[in-house]
Amino acid sequence: MPRLDFAASIADLRLLARARLPRSVFEFIDGGAADEYTLKANSDDFGAFRLMPDVGVDVALRSSATTVVGKPSRLPLVLAPTGLAGLYWPKGEIAAARSAARAGISFCLSTNSVASMEEVADAVPEVDRWFQLYFLKDPDLMRSMVERARASGYRVLCITLDLAVQGRRDRDIRNAFTVPLKPRLTTVLEVLARPAWLAGFLRAPMRFGNFAAAAPQGGFSSIAQHIAKLCDASADWDTVARLIELWDGPVVVKGLLNPRDAERAVALGVDAIIVSNHGGRQLDRVPSAIAALPAIAAAVAGRTQIILDGGVRRGTDIAIARCLGADACMIGRPFLWGLAAAGEAGVTRALDILRDELDIAMALLGVTSMDAFSAGHLWRNETAR
Amino acid sequence: MPRLDFAASIADLRLLARARLPRSVFEFIDGGAADEYTLKANSDDFGAFRLMPDVGVDVALRSSATTVVGKPSRLPLVLAPTGLAGLYWPKGEIAAARSAARAGISFCLSTNSVASMEEVADAVPEVDRWFQLYFLKDPDLMRSMVERARASGYRVLCITLDLAVQGRRDRDIRNAFTVPLKPRLTTVLEVLARPAWLAGFLRAPMRFGNFAAAAPQGGFSSIAQHIAKLCDASADWDTVARLIELWDGPVVVKGLLNPRDAERAVALGVDAIIVSNHGGRQLDRVPSAIAALPAIAAAVAGRTQIILDGGVRRGTDIAIARCLGADACMIGRPFLWGLAAAGEAGVTRALDILRDELDIAMALLGVTSMDAFSAGHLWRNETAR
Amino acid sequence: MPRLDFAASIADLRLLARARLPRSVFEFIDGGAADEYTLKANSDDFGAFRLMPDVGVDVALRSSATTVVGKPSRLPLVLAPTGLAGLYWPKGEIAAARSAARAGISFCLSTNSVASMEEVADAVPEVDRWFQLYFLKDPDLMRSMVERARASGYRVLCITLDLAVQGRRDRDIRNAFTVPLKPRLTTVLEVLARPAWLAGFLRAPMRFGNFAAAAPQGGFSSIAQHIAKLCDASADWDTVARLIELWDGPVVVKGLLNPRDAERAVALGVDAIIVSNHGGRQLDRVPSAIAALPAIAAAVAGRTQIILDGGVRRGTDIAIARCLGADACMIGRPFLWGLAAAGEAGVTRALDILRDELDIAMALLGVTSMDAFSAGHLWRNETAR
Amino acid sequence: MPRLDFAASIADLRLLARARLPRSVFEFIDGGAADEYTLKANSDDFGAFRLMPDVGVDVALRSSATTVVGKPSRLPLVLAPTGLAGLYWPKGEIAAARSAARAGISFCLSTNSVASMEEVADAVPEVDRWFQLYFLKDPDLMRSMVERARASGYRVLCITLDLAVQGRRDRDIRNAFTVPLKPRLTTVLEVLARPAWLAGFLRAPMRFGNFAAAAPQGGFSSIAQHIAKLCDASADWDTVARLIELWDGPVVVKGLLNPRDAERAVALGVDAIIVSNHGGRQLDRVPSAIAALPAIAAAVAGRTQIILDGGVRRGTDIAIARCLGADACMIGRPFLWGLAAAGEAGVTRALDILRDELDIAMALLGVTSMDAFSAGHLWRNETAR
Repeated sequence: MPRLDFAASIADLRLLARARLPRSVFEFIDGGAADEYTLKANSDDFGAFRLMPDVGVDVALRSSATTVVGKPSRLPLVLAPTGLAGLYWPKGEIAAARSAARAGISFCLSTNSVASMEEVADAVPEVDRWFQLYFLKDPDLMRSMVERARASGYRVLCITLDLAVQGRRDRDIRNAFTVPLKPRLTTVLEVLARPAWLAGFLRAPMRFGNFAAAAPQGGFSSIAQHIAKLCDASADWDTVARLIELWDGPVVVKGLLNPRDAERAVALGVDAIIVSNHGGRQLDRVPSAIAALPAIAAAVAGRTQIILDGGVRRGTDIAIARCLGADACMIGRPFLWGLAAAGEAGVTRALDILRDELDIAMALLGVTSMDAFSAGHLWRNETAR
Repeated sequence: MPRLDFAASIADLRLLARARLPRSVFEFIDGGAADEYTLKANSDDFGAFRLMPDVGVDVALRSSATTVVGKPSRLPLVLAPTGLAGLYWPKGEIAAARSAARAGISFCLSTNSVASMEEVADAVPEVDRWFQLYFLKDPDLMRSMVERARASGYRVLCITLDLAVQGRRDRDIRNAFTVPLKPRLTTVLEVLARPAWLAGFLRAPMRFGNFAAAAPQGGFSSIAQHIAKLCDASADWDTVARLIELWDGPVVVKGLLNPRDAERAVALGVDAIIVSNHGGRQLDRVPSAIAALPAIAAAVAGRTQIILDGGVRRGTDIAIARCLGADACMIGRPFLWGLAAAGEAGVTRALDILRDELDIAMALLGVTSMDAFSAGHLWRNETAR
Repeated sequence: MPRLDFAASIADLRLLARARLPRSVFEFIDGGAADEYTLKANSDDFGAFRLMPDVGVDVALRSSATTVVGKPSRLPLVLAPTGLAGLYWPKGEIAAARSAARAGISFCLSTNSVASMEEVADAVPEVDRWFQLYFLKDPDLMRSMVERARASGYRVLCITLDLAVQGRRDRDIRNAFTVPLKPRLTTVLEVLARPAWLAGFLRAPMRFGNFAAAAPQGGFSSIAQHIAKLCDASADWDTVARLIELWDGPVVVKGLLNPRDAERAVALGVDAIIVSNHGGRQLDRVPSAIAALPAIAAAVAGRTQIILDGGVRRGTDIAIARCLGADACMIGRPFLWGLAAAGEAGVTRALDILRDELDIAMALLGVTSMDAFSAGHLWRNETAR
Repeated sequence: MPRLDFAASIADLRLLARARLPRSVFEFIDGGAADEYTLKANSDDFGAFRLMPDVGVDVALRSSATTVVGKPSRLPLVLAPTGLAGLYWPKGEIAAARSAARAGISFCLSTNSVASMEEVADAVPEVDRWFQLYFLKDPDLMRSMVERARASGYRVLCITLDLAVQGRRDRDIRNAFTVPLKPRLTTVLEVLARPAWLAGFLRAPMRFGNFAAAAPQGGFSSIAQHIAKLCDASADWDTVARLIELWDGPVVVKGLLNPRDAERAVALGVDAIIVSNHGGRQLDRVPSAIAALPAIAAAVAGRTQIILDGGVRRGTDIAIARCLGADACMIGRPFLWGLAAAGEAGVTRALDILRDELDIAMALLGVTSMDAFSAGHLWRNETAR
């Protein structure tokens, strides 16, 4: 187990994850679509903003607590739905959910999780649970997913809009990444070089837990094949409307970059819009999440909550997103790197780092509550280019 | 033969080509004029644009079919005229034409091909064939070229305007690249290190096939010397007008960057304008093709078709070009890398990659036909620089 | 002892410092907060400006003398308050103060110095001394600091405003940097590799000299823990006002980036504002000092002096700061690198380099006095990007 | 002797020069002031411009001939005055002058040449000769220089305005570069590693040839010391006026970046203004020559000729400078690299490369004479950043 106290940043956790995972598994987390232009922009585009502090402010008492989709949260953070979290650490979804519970934030389970939604609910009843749903070709399967989620106490339904087909992820193609892992020679060698990971993997093999009851999963399929078989490219906003009706509880939509689409989501009465490009994993060359945020915030104008998903690696990123109109941020890779490095302790370390960084940013900006962030704390450099 | 299914992208095919070709031959494809500033800009300048998706759109049925210079095409792509394709793979022009036929797109043969226009026509009668013509000093030779092209069933005449003289390609000067390859020591060593290529080369040596009947080709000449001997620097728009009359069929002009020149071409009634800087191989420091496109599209205003040539490496590049007003794209290096890597199968892999990438881009942008692309799918980042 | 005459620039002195210090000590000087984005911008943002010379001007007689906070100075420079200068060279604060005296400039002692304020005053009575003060939790300790500073002849009180809490400096976390240095294995190995430094360290160990009388300092604490224990996050502009009254002499405030805060400081009647982000060590992503300067200069409009702190590495940087409205510059790392390289001689070399560079810049810009710099000597490149 | 026909570009000649010169001698050519920011900008800033070609133009007959300071020149080029050219090749100034004569362009001798002005005049009477003069402290020495130049048939007097003091060139300080070369251990080792250069150096040692008659030159002095002893920092525009009167022939002034200074030069009736920052060797952070050109061209408005000096490495650079209003370009390093690589043949190769590149640029831009370049051939990319 690595010494987590020497991991000063999320980037450090990423290095620990790289040291513990087989290369093709690490690249499944780390990679994005095509040239990874959008993936890189997700983080880099935060650099367009400067935070302008106020000094001489009493910041002795300050709090990062806020409300996310109607529920108090100790941090403006939600753990993002990420496929196959259980591949990085045995029962990875459960470890992440436990860490979220301890940190007082919400956890969103992916349709493509390894642990099933029922296993997570049983193991971590105390966490505020969201369930992420794709548009599925099979209407019965989709309905059953929704009903199982409600039955296991998931509070929020998170509908993913940006997966009509799966993006081309060049690394996964080069690595011939499949579920389950196909024992090709290069894969076997990579895996043997990571015995700690392998031990866990043998104990808790890779599968799509939410589908286990529904169908046998023989053979090796790429994620793209899995998505093509399952997901419905003909779904549209009417499908969203029907799901909202079916769920009859808080609904958030994930994968918007376009103010026009934000208007449609608001018109349907969603409880939050997640500004996201799927972590740069779907279509390269689309805007970064943070660059798309201001126009969406202007269009939404407070009528629903906005969650920024993509590129958050520092407490100052959360601060910037708040100043630009996001109510909270989703994080994916940051907690996965922690999970892959050290299981639940690693997720907790990731959340501790972000909490500490956000707290320091508040103190040094002269801000004592999440509501106090404003556009006035952002500064556009007109002098230096 | 390399495993083409691990070549996830055009860039991967380039690496395979590099592994199979002698260095100076690879650099003849890869290189450009002078500092290769324009060459690099051809690809990099696509990065100035972001694609803005619409979600919640039914994209189950989508088609990349379109019409190029009056002929239906299954993709908005044309294989560009490229000198000496037969140097990279025996009978390379025929392999490329076959692949184009199978993909349902047009193929443009270069004046400087290794296979003659008649050989290509005989071998691949089913492909839609274009013939590229330089301005030649010898009027009889030029007329005979045009007549042979017509006689062998080439449908479209493609007149190259940007080769009054040949650009200075520093790499070719350093490599002392000649036709045929001069057996200098370094060249010999490079060639011996590539036995697979050498075997093909010995079977089908390098020559300018279209000139074989006209003159003996003794001696070693650089491409620049070959061009200087053949091409007519005094040709002007009147020459174009005479060629249009002579051909009496569809004519496209290649090598425009300037809206003023686009106006002239429209006035002469050409069937398409190919916005091109000759793949960055002629004059360094001229605009990239994609950067020159918007002003030309504005000047042309739909009066003729526009084909973008230069820098296309991804399906998203084709999408961006469509949004900016191009009816189709020409690709040169992408298919040559495939050809050099694995012959016809490599060209087919290149076309498969681009087709798949374009299809995914359409699905994720919420676009179901080539006509549905619009300026509204482009987004200029005002937030991040 | 290195040959200082081969150190042509401040950057060269940095390399000499790196060669003499244990890595974690060097990184304590060199590093900044988080991704060191602001740290880098402090220097890089000078690159947004071009100096425009006048030729044909008689520059035979020229002088860099000026007045800083009411006192003549032979250069528009002040040595910045820097914690633990005595860690880099035995009695480092005294060596630096001596060098400042010889150069005819002022020296500002840090609260967190190794040598106490009394030791410095006794050893270098001839230097113009400033004392830097944090807001301390213990009001008696803060009052006693102020009184000791006055009693030992410090002329100017420098109040640091940007340290409500300490910034997260990732390198120090990774290095587990503490006061005193904790004998961890990696630290011991680093130190043994630097015997010259070690010899000095054993002679004059690391401690917070100004606190020696007040309390025993048992145990190892990180700088962050030290600051958290000492500093008062509830202090505000009223605290500044009370300190101004208590000191009853020249007061400067350090750590402003915001024109709003500059207005408040002017209203309180401070003698100078130090535009600073604490050398990029507190909150990453805030503006660079030089980029923040113009708006502050516009707000202050000559009502008090302005000192630029951050990123000055060249004589031309001082010239640019003057043109943008700074009366003087503070330098921290430049003199610390000299100090760590060669003690007093190294600080003197740093000051000699900057003096020579500034003198040459004046001659070549056609400027003969510090007052002659103007916005007209700056030039914004509209042509090249 | 290197195979010059494989040197495709000026950059290639630079590599050959590096291979033949001792490191500190090579760095004396290659280096600039301080961080070499301006040095780099001199070349890089050409990248802000794109050349926009016209096609369909008869360019069979084209000429790069022009008139420079009243004299026909076969190319719009002048060899710049460069100190110590004879250090790179025995009798280097004579070799360069011969090459200039053969190319039909003018040659400007530096005050700090190794060969005296009389030696050059005797050896190459056929070249159009300019003599570069510093402001000298000793009025008699300055007057005698002017008279000797006139007596030896130098046609144009070139007055350097940007050398009130010498810039700080960090590399020369680190290398302890002196005239003559001081036999320090590292210098000796560098020199022994370059026997071809050493042989020439022993035959024709380093000295300031124009001062040989005037004074003994014992001891080793840096160029900065040499300049400080000789040059007059008190000279101003009146000094220029007196020199114009004294010379009574064509006068050009070198080292202007500022439109205000260009106005003064025009008022004095100079025959040309040389826009220059001394090759980035004097004050770092001043504008690049090409970036400064447009404002000067606007101020001068055709009242005198303008010569651009700095950063020209390609024929397209000359074309860009013409489009922006320069009548000709001076080149320094490009011919010195050729000279250092292969003596006169190397200078000739440099001129051949630039001539060929310019000729191709004209053909591909659709330009047939130097007067035909216009602002319309430049294009500012509004699309891509």
